Amino acid sequence: MVLVIFRSVLREGVDGKYSVIAKEMEELVSTMPGFISAKDFTAADGERVSIIEFESEEAIQAWYRHPDHLIAQQRGRDEFYKSFKVDVCTPTRSYSVQC
Amino acid sequence: MVLVIFRSVLREGVDGKYSVIAKEMEELVSTMPGFISAKDFTAADGERVSIIEFESEEAIQAWYRHPDHLIAQQRGRDEFYKSFKVDVCTPTRSYSVQC
Repeated sequence: MVLVIFRSVLREGVDGKYSVIAKEMEELVSTMPGFISAKDFTAADGERVSIIEFESEEAIQAWYRHPDHLIAQQRGRDEFYKSFKVDVCTPTRSYSVQC
Repeated sequence: MVLVIFRSVLREGVDGKYSVIAKEMEELVSTMPGFISAKDFTAADGERVSIIEFESEEAIQAWYRHPDHLIAQQRGRDEFYKSFKVDVCTPTRSYSVQC
């Protein structure tokens, strides 16, 4: 399993337009081969993080290069994001607990 | 750099008590050798994620075993969490963009 941790800070006033694209990308990514899960979280200061799980690095590359996603990435850089940070990693240790 | 991705779902009605402990742990972790950063995010459905960066696996182990943190972990399992999931990983690829 490979995790993508995508942290981003949006420019002011773009939330409405951004959420339309974000929803489209959320629907698209879930159709990609090797997709496991994706979820969005927001911090108190507005920073966002998307945590996306794929079966393999190849699956991530295919998602990264999907034509619609490339267009969305460009719009992100041009219109929506103030800054973003991507970490790609394979967990060396994972555990889940039901309390 | 090593990332800890700590996802959790709280039981109902515990937010107030939990936030006191969470704040104490946030202050404590920032004093640990090898600590880089920590930030909390919340999803629309209430799931939380803390993303914590340390310099090394040894630094994480020291944090995991800090006596006050062990007590907090036990309270978490007994009182606060419905479920939680921990992933520890070293990014194989990272990049930051200022747009």
